[in-house]
Amino acid sequence: MKKKFEKKELINKSKDLSDWYTDVILKAELADYAPIRGCMVFRPYGFAIWENMQRILDSMIKEMGVSNAYFPLLIPYSLLKKEKEHIKGFSPELAVVTHGGGKKISEPLVIRPTSETIIYAMYSKWIKSFRDLPLRINQWCNIVRWEKRCYLFLRTMEFLWQEGHTCHRTHREAKEEVERVMRMYEDFYKDFLAIPGFLGRKSVSEKFAGACDTSAYEILTPNGKVLQACSAHDLGQNFSKPFKISFQDRDGKTKYVWQTCWGLSTRSIGGLIMVHGDDQGLVLPPKIAPVQVIIIPIFGKGKDFNQKILSFSNQIKKEIEKKGVRVKFDGRTQYSPGWKFNEWEIKGVPLRIEIGKDEISGKFLTLVRRDILNERLKIKNEKLKVKVQELLDKIQDNLYKKAKKFLREHTHEVSNYQKFKKIMRQTKGFISAFWCEDPKCEAKIKEETKATIRCLPKKAIEEKGKCLYCLKRANRKWIFAQAY
Amino acid sequence: MKKKFEKKELINKSKDLSDWYTDVILKAELADYAPIRGCMVFRPYGFAIWENMQRILDSMIKEMGVSNAYFPLLIPYSLLKKEKEHIKGFSPELAVVTHGGGKKISEPLVIRPTSETIIYAMYSKWIKSFRDLPLRINQWCNIVRWEKRCYLFLRTMEFLWQEGHTCHRTHREAKEEVERVMRMYEDFYKDFLAIPGFLGRKSVSEKFAGACDTSAYEILTPNGKVLQACSAHDLGQNFSKPFKISFQDRDGKTKYVWQTCWGLSTRSIGGLIMVHGDDQGLVLPPKIAPVQVIIIPIFGKGKDFNQKILSFSNQIKKEIEKKGVRVKFDGRTQYSPGWKFNEWEIKGVPLRIEIGKDEISGKFLTLVRRDILNERLKIKNEKLKVKVQELLDKIQDNLYKKAKKFLREHTHEVSNYQKFKKIMRQTKGFISAFWCEDPKCEAKIKEETKATIRCLPKKAIEEKGKCLYCLKRANRKWIFAQAY
Repeated sequence: MKKKFEKKELINKSKDLSDWYTDVILKAELADYAPIRGCMVFRPYGFAIWENMQRILDSMIKEMGVSNAYFPLLIPYSLLKKEKEHIKGFSPELAVVTHGGGKKISEPLVIRPTSETIIYAMYSKWIKSFRDLPLRINQWCNIVRWEKRCYLFLRTMEFLWQEGHTCHRTHREAKEEVERVMRMYEDFYKDFLAIPGFLGRKSVSEKFAGACDTSAYEILTPNGKVLQACSAHDLGQNFSKPFKISFQDRDGKTKYVWQTCWGLSTRSIGGLIMVHGDDQGLVLPPKIAPVQVIIIPIFGKGKDFNQKILSFSNQIKKEIEKKGVRVKFDGRTQYSPGWKFNEWEIKGVPLRIEIGKDEISGKFLTLVRRDILNERLKIKNEKLKVKVQELLDKIQDNLYKKAKKFLREHTHEVSNYQKFKKIMRQTKGFISAFWCEDPKCEAKIKEETKATIRCLPKKAIEEKGKCLYCLKRANRKWIFAQAY
Repeated sequence: MKKKFEKKELINKSKDLSDWYTDVILKAELADYAPIRGCMVFRPYGFAIWENMQRILDSMIKEMGVSNAYFPLLIPYSLLKKEKEHIKGFSPELAVVTHGGGKKISEPLVIRPTSETIIYAMYSKWIKSFRDLPLRINQWCNIVRWEKRCYLFLRTMEFLWQEGHTCHRTHREAKEEVERVMRMYEDFYKDFLAIPGFLGRKSVSEKFAGACDTSAYEILTPNGKVLQACSAHDLGQNFSKPFKISFQDRDGKTKYVWQTCWGLSTRSIGGLIMVHGDDQGLVLPPKIAPVQVIIIPIFGKGKDFNQKILSFSNQIKKEIEKKGVRVKFDGRTQYSPGWKFNEWEIKGVPLRIEIGKDEISGKFLTLVRRDILNERLKIKNEKLKVKVQELLDKIQDNLYKKAKKFLREHTHEVSNYQKFKKIMRQTKGFISAFWCEDPKCEAKIKEETKATIRCLPKKAIEEKGKCLYCLKRANRKWIFAQAY
């Protein structure tokens, strides 16, 4: 009977990243295609990753003193077009409601492609005095941007995110908010998703529609292309003026507020899958893994024997659970242990505990780390609780180090455009190079190499150099890469 | 300077419930009207109530073994109309997207008015064998049902909810699920929202569009009208047949699954406000209050003195916080203590601690319970931590008892239709009466008294009686009331 269940075969990650990516998402049951063009379904295992990310990031956001709220999904078109750059940027991506309650409605409503306009219409009502500032609100919600094709997690018509929107008395305070938020995002990516990256400021052509300045965290995928992992925007007074968000300051004068907005979406799950996964499937960092430890029984012959395995497994499970570890026992009898190993490897569970004849009679347990599959660890029973947490920490750490090493190996300092072009044709990755900050050079480089300017790293210093492209004077090294 | 800030005056609850309701929501800053007809904004304080409710209910749902997932917002019209009763019920309330990405789209998409159809399209793909059952998934999301007028929380175009959708091998299992879920909802309402009610089965004319059977929890508001607080539906095979959700059973035969669905929405916040609030404002049950304890300093003259008040208040705050209590310190200097008392009473914070001259010099603290405002409690400093938790528990308990008493006083056993009509004209409330189960009598009663059948209580027994309206034989007493 067990033969009926064939092992799930997976496409090799190294052979074709894109095919592997879709394959592993479907086989690990993270997500599925919806019967609507461009849309996906978050299946329970995939959604549990988002829930873990939400729980962590939400507490970081609250720790900063920002409160959650919820604003309407539907935005009147007249409101959306109040800020000119903003509507220009989002126009091609809008989903428009024209009928409601069986009738054509007088003014079309747009499904939020982002919520600046609807939120700021409320802010203008709520803010009156300097005492109402800073106003710092976040919302977790769904967003719709028209897409014809669906690239699971990375590009979908509907996605989930958090969007923070803050108002400040001064431009300095708003800029500090952007920096504080980006530090939070960087910590979140490094400490929880185990993903290193470049944090920095965008070039003018790459900034958010309506912003003065955009900061972003850029991460590297195994094929050398990069993803913008999240971003924060200094909106200046670009929105506060058309939306009339003004306050009476201490000096009695009426002034416009200075604003920021910032977001991180379910796209980050796509990055997570790509960065850590391997030929065997997902590899999830313990801190966000829905299941951190999987216990697999090796049943044998005889009811008594199997009963022993069961009760021993349960005991182990309870012990680990008490430590706050997310542990699951796979007692299904229709599958062989080998089939289950494979299944939970595809699902990327960080740690596996095997419980069979040797384990119930001896004093040792057998553990296998998802990040080092060929190593079987023997752990003394009484040390299990401590060891499990220790191993989870080690795995988390190891994943970050591996990703950091890959990033380092794929980041080049380049001053020669020929070399730049060669790298962008071959291994790709990040390139740090002088740029004169003329959009024309930026456009030419993009046209000739597909590489765009990802950011000016936070740590960039003033230097003297020559623009990679035009050889004119340049003062800072920017980060280039091909975007996903 | 302090005179500038006038005390917020509130409409009397007893004089006009409806005006008081809107007034208290706006003044407590729970919510606001959005610039879109029928829509509201959840302000941070109101959304924090929903977050607390979500956190509690979500853990109850997971405790039952149900997993969270997320399905698309937009549903193709062709999918929505697959189940005939369902589309008939929801047609008048749909918001329809006809344009996307700047073009007219070939098939209109509907914003989910509920998610049966999109979820069941996926279930038919995922379920193959009896081994895939039961499948039990929940989602937290936004819902749009076309509304022209906005009655904050209670009736809005967009609202938030959780919707559970389960598939089972047998009808019996599905029915058991409905019972399990309704028990969970009842516990949630009683233990956390402190709201008693009637749990029971709906009449045929009041059931959900597409269900075999609907169960609901009905709660009473101060003007004697009732709200359906949440509901669970036995869908039978009404959806599994048109959506082809079938499985190979143990006997090798292909069968359709038996389904349930169930939901609780932000409407419940409306019930919460109405049931517990008083002339002074909101009264929040401690278990879901965003702020459980507010500390208000009574500043005096002299910098040193005020510094002492500050540091003493901080110390008290930390002590209480350590116990896991949600506590806030209102140190704003532009408002008088009296203004702050009023403010936090409107916001319904269960417990207030006043810290002034007597408190920093003596060994007693002054506490005031929101549910008994005219009583000032003196608590010994060293007993504070224990006492705060004790008082919060007492308040929670007291709110439930008060609501229960009101419910009891407004529930009548009636066998005479004249008396029934009189009650429905005057005090209203719940009426328990025999009904022959003929929809014609139900319709006549509704027409003549505005009362509908709310439910057949879970605890109802078979009895011999005469229908309230037609005097023909009736076997069970049903619960009648005027719905909101």
